[in-house]
Amino acid sequence: MIYLDNAATSFPKPEIVYEAVLNNMKNYGANPGRSGHKLALEAGRTIYKGRELVCRLFNIDDPMQIIFVSNATDALNLAIKGVLNQGDHVITTSMEHNSVLRPIKAMEANGVENTIVQCDNRGVLDPQLIREAIKTNTKLIVTTHASNVTGTIMPIEEIGEIAKKHGILFLVDAAQTAGVYDIDVEKFHIDLLATAGHKGLMGPQGTGILYIKEGVEVRHFKEGGTGSKSQELLQPLMLPDRYESGTPNTPGIAGLAAGIEFILEEGLDKIRKHEEGLTQYFIEGLKKIPEIKIYGVQDAAKQAAVISINIGDEDSSEIGYVLDKVFDIGVRPGLHCAPMAHKTIETFEQGTVRFSIGYFTKKEEINAALEALKNICEQL
Amino acid sequence: MIYLDNAATSFPKPEIVYEAVLNNMKNYGANPGRSGHKLALEAGRTIYKGRELVCRLFNIDDPMQIIFVSNATDALNLAIKGVLNQGDHVITTSMEHNSVLRPIKAMEANGVENTIVQCDNRGVLDPQLIREAIKTNTKLIVTTHASNVTGTIMPIEEIGEIAKKHGILFLVDAAQTAGVYDIDVEKFHIDLLATAGHKGLMGPQGTGILYIKEGVEVRHFKEGGTGSKSQELLQPLMLPDRYESGTPNTPGIAGLAAGIEFILEEGLDKIRKHEEGLTQYFIEGLKKIPEIKIYGVQDAAKQAAVISINIGDEDSSEIGYVLDKVFDIGVRPGLHCAPMAHKTIETFEQGTVRFSIGYFTKKEEINAALEALKNICEQL
Repeated sequence: MIYLDNAATSFPKPEIVYEAVLNNMKNYGANPGRSGHKLALEAGRTIYKGRELVCRLFNIDDPMQIIFVSNATDALNLAIKGVLNQGDHVITTSMEHNSVLRPIKAMEANGVENTIVQCDNRGVLDPQLIREAIKTNTKLIVTTHASNVTGTIMPIEEIGEIAKKHGILFLVDAAQTAGVYDIDVEKFHIDLLATAGHKGLMGPQGTGILYIKEGVEVRHFKEGGTGSKSQELLQPLMLPDRYESGTPNTPGIAGLAAGIEFILEEGLDKIRKHEEGLTQYFIEGLKKIPEIKIYGVQDAAKQAAVISINIGDEDSSEIGYVLDKVFDIGVRPGLHCAPMAHKTIETFEQGTVRFSIGYFTKKEEINAALEALKNICEQL
Repeated sequence: MIYLDNAATSFPKPEIVYEAVLNNMKNYGANPGRSGHKLALEAGRTIYKGRELVCRLFNIDDPMQIIFVSNATDALNLAIKGVLNQGDHVITTSMEHNSVLRPIKAMEANGVENTIVQCDNRGVLDPQLIREAIKTNTKLIVTTHASNVTGTIMPIEEIGEIAKKHGILFLVDAAQTAGVYDIDVEKFHIDLLATAGHKGLMGPQGTGILYIKEGVEVRHFKEGGTGSKSQELLQPLMLPDRYESGTPNTPGIAGLAAGIEFILEEGLDKIRKHEEGLTQYFIEGLKKIPEIKIYGVQDAAKQAAVISINIGDEDSSEIGYVLDKVFDIGVRPGLHCAPMAHKTIETFEQGTVRFSIGYFTKKEEINAALEALKNICEQL
C-alpha cells in the first residue's frame, strides 16, 4: 500500500524503533522505577533517556518536567483541565482538533468561559484576533501548531509573545509538527507543550508527551502507585511522578526514544525539507487537475505535510474508498475529528480527502497518487 | 537474571506476544478506527479481537463494554471516580494497592465517604466486616482479588453476593490474578473489573483493561477525537468510544491479545497449577530456613504466586540489593505501593522482600532463590 496517512500515525517507523521496542520487551522487560534490580533499573534508565531526548528536541532544561502519557489527547486533557478553574477564560482557534475543543467545551460546565477565534477559510489565524479576545480572566491560550486538516501553520511565536506579555499560559498542540519543525519552548514562550509520540516523533502508538514549564501548577487527575513516597495515601506532588501513576508504557517509550534519536541524527532540517519538497510537488501536481479543489494555503513553506482536497462535489469518503480499493493508496477522508476546522474551510458536509506525507514517503508515491486522482477525475 | 518480580510485570512474555507487537508495527501500523483504508481496518480488527478475547476470558457478553486503558491504575481511577458522587460511601479493604486507596482518599475532598475494612495480619478479609460496613449511601465496594504484598486471595464471590443483595456496585482489582485465576463476572457479580494487561495477561506494558457492566453509568474524564460522531463538540456517549479518546496503543493491544490467546491455549488451570506448585514448593523451602519470617496465609491454595518474607530485622531493601548484586535474582523489596497492607501485616517500617512467580518460572530458579536466602542468612 502507498501510505499517505502520516498525520494519523507515521508509518513505517525507522528500523531502530522496532528494535528498541523489541529489545526492551525481550531483554529488560521489567517494571521501571519500582523494584531496583538490574532489569528494573535498565528499564528506568530508558525512560529517563526518553525524557532527556525530548528535552534536547524542544530545548527544555529539566527532564523531570516531561510527562509521558498515552497520546496527545491525554496530554491536552491534562493540560487544559489541569490549569483552568471556575471563572477562568480560555482562548483557542476554530482550526483545533476535537482533543482541544471537546475538553474546552466540557469545561463550560465547570464555569470556564471560552473564546474560539475564527480563522479564515484557508485556516490562517490572525494573531491580532487572539490579542483582541484577551479578557481580564484569560488564563490560557491553546493553539495547534499546524492544522491536522489543512496543514496550515499557526504563528505560534507571535502568539507566544502575546501570551507572555499578558501573563497568560500558552499551550501548544504539536501533534502535527513535533519531529519535523523546530519547536523551542523558550523562544516561543511555551508553558505547556502537548504532542503525540507516534506521529512525527516516529515512536509507537500508545505514547504521548506533556511538557510542563517549571512552576506552572497543573492539577492531577489520577492517583496510584508511583514507586515514590509509597508510605503515603496522598499522591506525591513531585514531577513527573505526580502525573505518571501506574506502570508506564516502557516498550513504547523505548521506541519513542529511538524515534527521537533517529530524528536528531537525521536533523530536523533534512526531515522538514523532504516533507516540504514533496508537499510542494504534490500541490503543483494537484493544481494541474482542474476538477480538484485544494484547501489551505497551498504553499509548503506555510503548511505541514498535510494536504486536503475534494473532487467537485463528490463525497470525500467515496474518493477515499476508491483510492484504497482500486489504487491501494491509504488516505483519510471525512472530518478528521476537527468539525470546526471543516466549518472554517467550508467543507463541513463534504469533508475532505486528506493526504499526509511522512519522512519515508517517496516521490514515486506522490506521482502514483496524482495519477490515481487524474484517473478518478476522468472516470467521473 | 533469575526474574522473580512477576507481580510487577510478567517477564518474559510468550514469543507470540513479541511477534504480535512487531507484526502490528511493521505490517499494519496504521491508526485503527479512523481512516478506513486497508491498514487502518486491519489495526481496528486487531483491537476488536482483543476485546473479544478479554470477553472470553472473563465471561463477558459484549466486547463494546471492554475499555482499553494504559494500566490498571488508569482503569481503577476511571471506575472509582466515574461512579462515585458527592454524598456516596465506598467500602474497601486495608490490603489495597495505592491505585485503589489514593483515588478513594482523594475523593474525600469531593464529599465521598469511605470505610476501609481491616484485614487480619495475614491479609485475610472477613466478608462479614464488609456486610457490617454497608450504609444506606454505600454506592461501591472495591477489593483486590489478591494482595500484591502477600498474595492473599480475597473472597470475591462472597463479596459479590453481598454487593448484589444490597444493590451496591462491585469493582474488583484483578491486577494480580487475571490470566491465572478463573474470573467470571457473571458468577462473581462483578460490575466493574479493572486489571493490568502486562502482568498475568502477558501483554506489553502500557496496557490495561476496564470492563463496565452494561447499564453501569461511569463518568468520563477525557474528551477528544474518537473517530465517531466527529461533527459534534460533545464527547460521544457510546462505548467504548466514550472512554477511548485519541489514538490507542495498538501494538500494545495486539500484544495483549496474543497474550490472552496464549493463556486460552494453555488453559488457566495449567497456568494456575504451575504457579501454585512452585509457590507451595517455595513456601515449604522457606519454612526450613529458621531466620526467615514468611507473611500471608502460607498456603498456595489460598494465595496468588506472591510471597513476602523478611530475614530477622534486616532492611528489606538491603536483602533485595544483595539478591540482585550477589545472586543475580530480581525481586521487589519495600512497600510495594501498598502502605496500608504493610501496616496490616505489621511490616510498615521494614517493608518485605517480595518474590513473585510467573508461568515461565522454573523449579531450578526457586531452588536458586532458596539457596541464596540460606546463604544470606548464614552470612548475617
